[in-house]
Amino acid sequence: MLSKNQIKLINKLKLKKHRTESNVFVAEGIKTIKELLESNLKLKHLYTTELFNIETDLETLISEADLKRISFLTTPNKALAVFEIPKSNPIDLTQMCVALDDVRDPGNLGTIIRLCDWFGVRDLICNKGTVDCFNPKVVQATMGSITRVNINYIDLEAFINDVNVPVYGAFMDGKNVYTHNALLNSGILVMGNEANGVSNSIEALITEKIAIPRFGALRATESLNVATATSILLSEFKRRTLTEK
Amino acid sequence: MLSKNQIKLINKLKLKKHRTESNVFVAEGIKTIKELLESNLKLKHLYTTELFNIETDLETLISEADLKRISFLTTPNKALAVFEIPKSNPIDLTQMCVALDDVRDPGNLGTIIRLCDWFGVRDLICNKGTVDCFNPKVVQATMGSITRVNINYIDLEAFINDVNVPVYGAFMDGKNVYTHNALLNSGILVMGNEANGVSNSIEALITEKIAIPRFGALRATESLNVATATSILLSEFKRRTLTEK
Repeated sequence: MLSKNQIKLINKLKLKKHRTESNVFVAEGIKTIKELLESNLKLKHLYTTELFNIETDLETLISEADLKRISFLTTPNKALAVFEIPKSNPIDLTQMCVALDDVRDPGNLGTIIRLCDWFGVRDLICNKGTVDCFNPKVVQATMGSITRVNINYIDLEAFINDVNVPVYGAFMDGKNVYTHNALLNSGILVMGNEANGVSNSIEALITEKIAIPRFGALRATESLNVATATSILLSEFKRRTLTEK
Repeated sequence: MLSKNQIKLINKLKLKKHRTESNVFVAEGIKTIKELLESNLKLKHLYTTELFNIETDLETLISEADLKRISFLTTPNKALAVFEIPKSNPIDLTQMCVALDDVRDPGNLGTIIRLCDWFGVRDLICNKGTVDCFNPKVVQATMGSITRVNINYIDLEAFINDVNVPVYGAFMDGKNVYTHNALLNSGILVMGNEANGVSNSIEALITEKIAIPRFGALRATESLNVATATSILLSEFKRRTLTEK
């Protein structure tokens, strides 16, 4: 049985404020939790309807009804774990990094973290307006990738101002990414907000504006979703490391 | 004021069965509805909190409260329109087509329709197990692109069996899509179910297995989301039509 107090404490972790205060976050579902347990993350407690058989004092067997009381999911998935929020490592600018400027949708951030993992991007840099990566919806959408990407929340404008590497950004009037030959395997790729794109202050710091050309002929298609655009750009950047050696 | 009967009829359109019976579907939000009004789609009725000033007998001014009663969205967006479901055109196999095998998530289907529009893919072919493209969540996610892609629901296995074009499918053990040189600008690109990938019966008909290589070094990343994988493959196919002429 879970106490009222335990339920209250876990429910609070929906909010960033409380996650920051207690330095923990929630992950749900057997598959995600198993991935996280295999990483360097420190487990604080596991609440589960099927024992994982880990250290006993870290694991509590609970009923489906209790899981419903603490789960953030519409359909709870057998287990919920509380992990310590890990310390971020310093950013390594000798490799291609992705930077996010006010990405607000948890699903988009989760997909982008998964893409960074897939394409071997070690560092994801988020401005303070980007949704928190320990938001339960983000953790869920990363499918475990969150443990393999180094994420820092910083003052993005000040950071880009201080560094001396190419800064790429996607703009409708940029150079065609497929034929543009200045792509390097280091630098920062900035992706902007879902509705407004890259902010004016960051746009002023972009050194290379690139565009994904539209092939659809008839009419102006709504611009691509930020996660989709990130996948196309990372694919194109990384492809060149294979084929242009 | 909306009558109880009107509210009931619109609410029924959440289900495919009722959409098929009455041959209409629902679109919401000013932007999406305006895009649809500019297309060849036939408007049946518009319920709106701000007049569009179209033909009077097709438009009803309603209150926010009434909009809430008929909207499928958590946060209704000023207008809801009922359009006639258009007839699909025959499939044109002289161009690259995308085929979906049991794609179940409305957000994924919506994103894939938007990608087809962006990359100039005229035909999207869905097997009967793929979520209905006139599902309100799909319509919403396409951002108007649904009017610019020709979508057919067919017996995919029988269809592929009957045609004589390259059939591409994404598999972990396929040939590297970036370096594989047999990509043509015609054929069918098959994308599979979110959890299970391409079904065995369709896999047997694939003539070219391709893979998106993983660059992340450390551990097995969960496979890419189907919409993300589609964006990378379409980008790579279409890029070659630009650079390999």
